[in-house]
Amino acid sequence: MADLATSLRTALDGPYADARAAARQLLTDTGVLTDPTLSLEDQRTRTRDAVLALAASDVPAAGFAKAHGGTGDIGASLVGFETLVYADVSLMVKSGVQWGLFGGAIENLGTARHHEQYLPDVISGDLLGCFAMTETGHGSDVQSLETTATYDPATGEIVVDSPTPSARKDYIGGAAHDATMAAVFAQLVTAGPGEEPTSRGVHCVLVPIRDADGRDLPGITTSDCGVKGGLNGVDNGRIVFDQVRVPRANLLDQYASVADDGTYSSPIDNPNRRFFTMLGTLIRGRVSIAGASGAASRQALAIAVRYALQRRQFGAPGAGPDEDHEVLLMDYRTHQRRLLPALARSYALQIAQNELVTTLARIQGSDAEADPREQRELEALAAGVKAYASWHASATIQDCREACGGAGYLAANRLTTLKADTDVFTTFEGDNTVLMQLVGKELLTGYADEVRGLDPVGMASFAVANAAEVVLERTPVAPLVARLRDAARREGDEPDLLDRGTQLALLTDREEHLLETLARRMQSARKDSGAAAFAAVNSAQDHLVHLGRAHVERVVLDAFVATVAEVEDNDVRAVLDAVCDLFAVSAVEDDKAWFLEHRRLSVGRAKNVTVTVNELCEKLRPHAADLVDAFGIPEHLLDVEMMH
Amino acid sequence: MADLATSLRTALDGPYADARAAARQLLTDTGVLTDPTLSLEDQRTRTRDAVLALAASDVPAAGFAKAHGGTGDIGASLVGFETLVYADVSLMVKSGVQWGLFGGAIENLGTARHHEQYLPDVISGDLLGCFAMTETGHGSDVQSLETTATYDPATGEIVVDSPTPSARKDYIGGAAHDATMAAVFAQLVTAGPGEEPTSRGVHCVLVPIRDADGRDLPGITTSDCGVKGGLNGVDNGRIVFDQVRVPRANLLDQYASVADDGTYSSPIDNPNRRFFTMLGTLIRGRVSIAGASGAASRQALAIAVRYALQRRQFGAPGAGPDEDHEVLLMDYRTHQRRLLPALARSYALQIAQNELVTTLARIQGSDAEADPREQRELEALAAGVKAYASWHASATIQDCREACGGAGYLAANRLTTLKADTDVFTTFEGDNTVLMQLVGKELLTGYADEVRGLDPVGMASFAVANAAEVVLERTPVAPLVARLRDAARREGDEPDLLDRGTQLALLTDREEHLLETLARRMQSARKDSGAAAFAAVNSAQDHLVHLGRAHVERVVLDAFVATVAEVEDNDVRAVLDAVCDLFAVSAVEDDKAWFLEHRRLSVGRAKNVTVTVNELCEKLRPHAADLVDAFGIPEHLLDVEMMH
Repeated sequence: MADLATSLRTALDGPYADARAAARQLLTDTGVLTDPTLSLEDQRTRTRDAVLALAASDVPAAGFAKAHGGTGDIGASLVGFETLVYADVSLMVKSGVQWGLFGGAIENLGTARHHEQYLPDVISGDLLGCFAMTETGHGSDVQSLETTATYDPATGEIVVDSPTPSARKDYIGGAAHDATMAAVFAQLVTAGPGEEPTSRGVHCVLVPIRDADGRDLPGITTSDCGVKGGLNGVDNGRIVFDQVRVPRANLLDQYASVADDGTYSSPIDNPNRRFFTMLGTLIRGRVSIAGASGAASRQALAIAVRYALQRRQFGAPGAGPDEDHEVLLMDYRTHQRRLLPALARSYALQIAQNELVTTLARIQGSDAEADPREQRELEALAAGVKAYASWHASATIQDCREACGGAGYLAANRLTTLKADTDVFTTFEGDNTVLMQLVGKELLTGYADEVRGLDPVGMASFAVANAAEVVLERTPVAPLVARLRDAARREGDEPDLLDRGTQLALLTDREEHLLETLARRMQSARKDSGAAAFAAVNSAQDHLVHLGRAHVERVVLDAFVATVAEVEDNDVRAVLDAVCDLFAVSAVEDDKAWFLEHRRLSVGRAKNVTVTVNELCEKLRPHAADLVDAFGIPEHLLDVEMMH
Repeated sequence: MADLATSLRTALDGPYADARAAARQLLTDTGVLTDPTLSLEDQRTRTRDAVLALAASDVPAAGFAKAHGGTGDIGASLVGFETLVYADVSLMVKSGVQWGLFGGAIENLGTARHHEQYLPDVISGDLLGCFAMTETGHGSDVQSLETTATYDPATGEIVVDSPTPSARKDYIGGAAHDATMAAVFAQLVTAGPGEEPTSRGVHCVLVPIRDADGRDLPGITTSDCGVKGGLNGVDNGRIVFDQVRVPRANLLDQYASVADDGTYSSPIDNPNRRFFTMLGTLIRGRVSIAGASGAASRQALAIAVRYALQRRQFGAPGAGPDEDHEVLLMDYRTHQRRLLPALARSYALQIAQNELVTTLARIQGSDAEADPREQRELEALAAGVKAYASWHASATIQDCREACGGAGYLAANRLTTLKADTDVFTTFEGDNTVLMQLVGKELLTGYADEVRGLDPVGMASFAVANAAEVVLERTPVAPLVARLRDAARREGDEPDLLDRGTQLALLTDREEHLLETLARRMQSARKDSGAAAFAAVNSAQDHLVHLGRAHVERVVLDAFVATVAEVEDNDVRAVLDAVCDLFAVSAVEDDKAWFLEHRRLSVGRAKNVTVTVNELCEKLRPHAADLVDAFGIPEHLLDVEMMH
């Protein structure tokens, strides 16, 4: 165990060791770019300059297919963006808007002419764009956007318009200043010969919004969202369209097109399915936010843990008042409990993120059409991991700030800026509460697929017997994970909390039970309509969110377990085993009341959960420095004022 | 129930209706002063100007005794400061530094000559001061401060010095720019004739630090803490002393004095008791922070609830896609659960704060010397309520921000600035984790007082039988509260969660049990020394924190129950009853695992806790607007951008 940190890093980097090393290298000459002492304008200029500098690196091109001028390495692209967080969260977000959202919309929703015409300039940064989806009136509910894009066969143009004040595009990164083109999501209205003009649902149209001198083009009115709670390097703004005309060719027509005569056609007949297919291609944004949340959490933990290994306060009972006898913060139980379970969850999340990125790269990198079910499951998992990781970041960075006391409150020590800059992650790219319900609904859909055709009685008996299969079948796990879990399930009811199989079984049982009971609730509400239908669905919201979270946590544990088991060095694996234990047992502790209420834990075992978390914290305490060094965050980006 | 909001406000304002009305009136012409678009310097200037403008009002004088040029209305003073939060948290904090901490130190630790010489200028704002306690090396552990104040009998001066880099005064509000004098906490070193110079513990000395032109005086080096996570209207800074000489008269000598020949004398022989007596007089700072946390939470809730009553998103299941059928955010269960239990806790806290302020005013406003036990209990309660209220503020404002989505992230909508400005409340005026342990220790001390002299066997049997008496005796409750609780205790084990007595009994039982078991742990660790002693105390840290929190929550509920019972209008009382129920039952829900593990809740009742919280949210939903209107926050300070 000559270098524990290096070995742990290998496990954490997983298949992206090279990509992460390259991304870290990229930051070698970059200091911390976040600087809240600068004016809003200067912060934005600095971030824009950094984005343009980044355009010269390999990172942007990695996200695009070779056929489109990229290098087609989706994994490296996502890992590269994530790493930017260490220097500046605004840089990561503004890059994500330019290449992930704007460029991603063109690549995934457009066709060859769009790829050829725009992508080279998008990749090089010569064309800066924005992603104009959210409106003042509608954010999470994208299907209800009000902006219209009406085809005018007389001129062959599409007329983009904001018919109401709430149709205004809002919070759009780049819209306040830098973007010269917008990928606008709008209700497409068109009529074929002899048809009435009909709304075809939300589609994406490219609309130039500014001239080269930064002036709004005719019909366009942009404005500025001003100072935000964070991310002030990103120029978020608003766009109002007043009958803006663009050529028909500006419709991104991968999934639907309008003929010269106004005839609408799409390879996907069902409008609902078409909408979700289009949205599904944009999944990379959520995966990026999950990654960025993880990176910010790791950086905050590295700062707080290092401070706790240096800062002493209060003499130990029985010791003298000399400074030598003062106790390191890291040795206090309350401090360990604040930082170490969050550290363990950060390990688990990084490993799960590696897996999510790999799956995404496999599906999106393939020329074959994705299996619809696999695609839907990936979308649900991306939504769930994004929500789980961004809530984790919010709570963890807050705890790190508090664990550093007054020093933690100084901007120079990075924790307040990390908190402020990542705070919006819980609500953008989809509100977390809405996303967790989406995860729950997807599980429910999968469940319903299996039980379709069963009468209520049959459904109930099926539920009890087969929920397990449905849950497990739908997110395949490594054989080792399945073996451990199943062995624990056979063993009965007083197993050891440190047994890996027990941990897996506890989280799997919870998910299954939540799914079964939710399915029954929905089944019995099936005949309701109107207010009663709303009441039934509404009263199950918490249940849905709980199911979503339980699912994500189980999938994250599965991934962590499989990775730990593959580590060959016994000493390194022992440490990672303890980290995995701490993640699993503190996940149980966080939801202990549920396990007690559902008799998955006896009262005696439940008390033991807390004791076990404490013991694991003590066990990991000697490795605290290595555990954060393993994150491989460039030293100059951790070198904050309070460490001197 | 012609005007429910007004009636609720009467209950919330309690004995401070006039003081609160006057404080609100004071804000009539004040807009929102917080403006993160200003430069650091302009934010500071604006806050300083507002402090000086406030000096012309009645608020500062209220905090000082009539004999010292004040008006002696401590309650009005605390309520007045709290209300400033609605306009600007920096204004409240900077005012608190000037009049509460700096002025308070002079009034409470000084004697007539200090009162006469300084207080008129402190009250009028002609003398701006700072409170130089915290050092770079020591914050929570004030007894270990390193700054020295050494008496030199040759010149009759006290020499103030920072002997080490960690002795630097740090995070001191006013030290960066505005303060011309500092109340410096330092180890007083003096020798009477024939004695060796001896450290007498921490004392407070007045030290001029700047001349009229703002230049550091000789031997003083101030510097700037720069941008912080919030509160950027306050100029926090650092002070280093290099053998700075001040007259002996600058020692604030209420509790200890140094004679011309260096002889040290104090009316309090025990140095430990002397230290805590001096610190105890400064309790008003913590009470102010508790009040400010409450005010900020109420303002955030008022903003988020009003937005949720206006904003619609997603059509109800079964309804059409028309906007008319979109659902108000406030009607979603997840949204109700985010906002309404926090609203209920804010009600409970405001009523508990009224009681805390009243007790403080009674004890500090009396000429008689405070009963030491009563004083100690007040200190523990102030510490506990400060911790409880500031954690509540941090969590609640965060939830409110998230509940408003992207709009919540714009600074113009106040939630991010409220969050950032109050974030430090969890760690200044005492780190919350340390404070909650202090509460626990005080309860343990009271318990030990009662059981002193008992052998371990006697102690154990005493513990089981009498913990209840000890807990209850030490914080007297209204007879009605005691009667309700005791009746529920007699009734046995399947009582109704909506029964007030059951709620009181649940929270009281928890506190008693935590105290008993902690006492036994400490009892059995009594014989440990060195590392074992540290390990025993350290391993009980969580237990102590839990006890502290349980105690505060029980005291808050007691106060709420007593107030609700006094409301005469049946309709108004019915609403407040439901708010009180929601506070009590969600407190049980937050700690449900504990109640299950300790068999205070059966599995069936535990599930019912969640159902009951949901039902209470639905019951209060129709009153949401009135419930936040009742806070009486001036309308122009709630009029944020997203409401238009």
